[in-house]
Amino acid sequence: MSSSLKLDKLINALQIMPGIGKRSATRIAYQLLERKRTEAIRLADVLQDAMQNIVYCKQCQNYSDHEFCDICQDIKRQDKRLLCVVETPSDMQAIEQGGNYFGLYFILHGHLSPIDGIGPQELRLDILEKLLAEHKFDELILATNPTVEGEATASYIAALAKKYEIVVSRLATGLPQGSDLDCIDEHTIAASLTYRRVLKDN
Amino acid sequence: MSSSLKLDKLINALQIMPGIGKRSATRIAYQLLERKRTEAIRLADVLQDAMQNIVYCKQCQNYSDHEFCDICQDIKRQDKRLLCVVETPSDMQAIEQGGNYFGLYFILHGHLSPIDGIGPQELRLDILEKLLAEHKFDELILATNPTVEGEATASYIAALAKKYEIVVSRLATGLPQGSDLDCIDEHTIAASLTYRRVLKDN
Repeated sequence: MSSSLKLDKLINALQIMPGIGKRSATRIAYQLLERKRTEAIRLADVLQDAMQNIVYCKQCQNYSDHEFCDICQDIKRQDKRLLCVVETPSDMQAIEQGGNYFGLYFILHGHLSPIDGIGPQELRLDILEKLLAEHKFDELILATNPTVEGEATASYIAALAKKYEIVVSRLATGLPQGSDLDCIDEHTIAASLTYRRVLKDN
Repeated sequence: MSSSLKLDKLINALQIMPGIGKRSATRIAYQLLERKRTEAIRLADVLQDAMQNIVYCKQCQNYSDHEFCDICQDIKRQDKRLLCVVETPSDMQAIEQGGNYFGLYFILHGHLSPIDGIGPQELRLDILEKLLAEHKFDELILATNPTVEGEATASYIAALAKKYEIVVSRLATGLPQGSDLDCIDEHTIAASLTYRRVLKDN
């Protein structure tokens, strides 16, 4: 207990954030009080606005300020006729930062996990199917994580996509760029051999 | 840039917190959106309330919801006629958790540091002097940190307290309870010898 009930409440409330325990919350509360009251009031406004007004884009299911997000409304992207399925909004961000994909996205907000009660319905695969049926995509890129759950989810979606006569692909697995074979786990080494590519110039 | 301007604003605003960089802010923003919208709206309310309404206690200078904090208003504590000077509100908390001090506090909110422009005025030592003049304390405990700046601040306050005919003490320096001599730095070992105490029973 500190000297102020409002401060105690703040320290408790801050702990809803992932990775913030009691000690960090206390440090944050004191620092904001001591030096950043104006900025903290602005944070409170921005936080409230975000939590109350950010919705899911009706097409890609990403977070959006409007009914349809900027990416889904971008005609240049629609013209590419590519759809990339990812597990989370941050996975989408990671691909955007890669800088060489210019098509549309679909965000699952998770992966199939029957044990946690996450089935096709929770991943809104009905919306994905509707999207595949209504748009003429040339290719469906399954960019779920290269984990057991990610692979299972990708297989499920691949099976489901069969009836739409569409090329289905999966992100390459192999050695990370700039890595050292010495430090790579055995599964990745095995995958890099299995999926080795023939050099065309030779 | 993410898919939502409000989300970008939130990720930026979260970075005013100490220890929260872009990566943590992004993770926090997504997790709050995904799972904790109600709690996050409450956090916004609590944060706003704390930043707008927490004031400094007029006596001890600690954070308080009212003009005078609960500790300063506690008659039992006033009766002890003890005043403990600490650098920060969290130092005060640490002493409260020690559980064997029942007097009053004065919080400096820093230490003397001429190079950073922090002099006696910034530490509100005029308010401390007024407190010493008006109350009849038996003892003034200087609980600033055992660092160069903390020692300098303690010396300055000790000199200033001379005219009030009051016992002035400093927290003991020595080995932490439960520690291992092997792992203690040389300055602490030296201090534990300098300030060794004679066992009275022998």
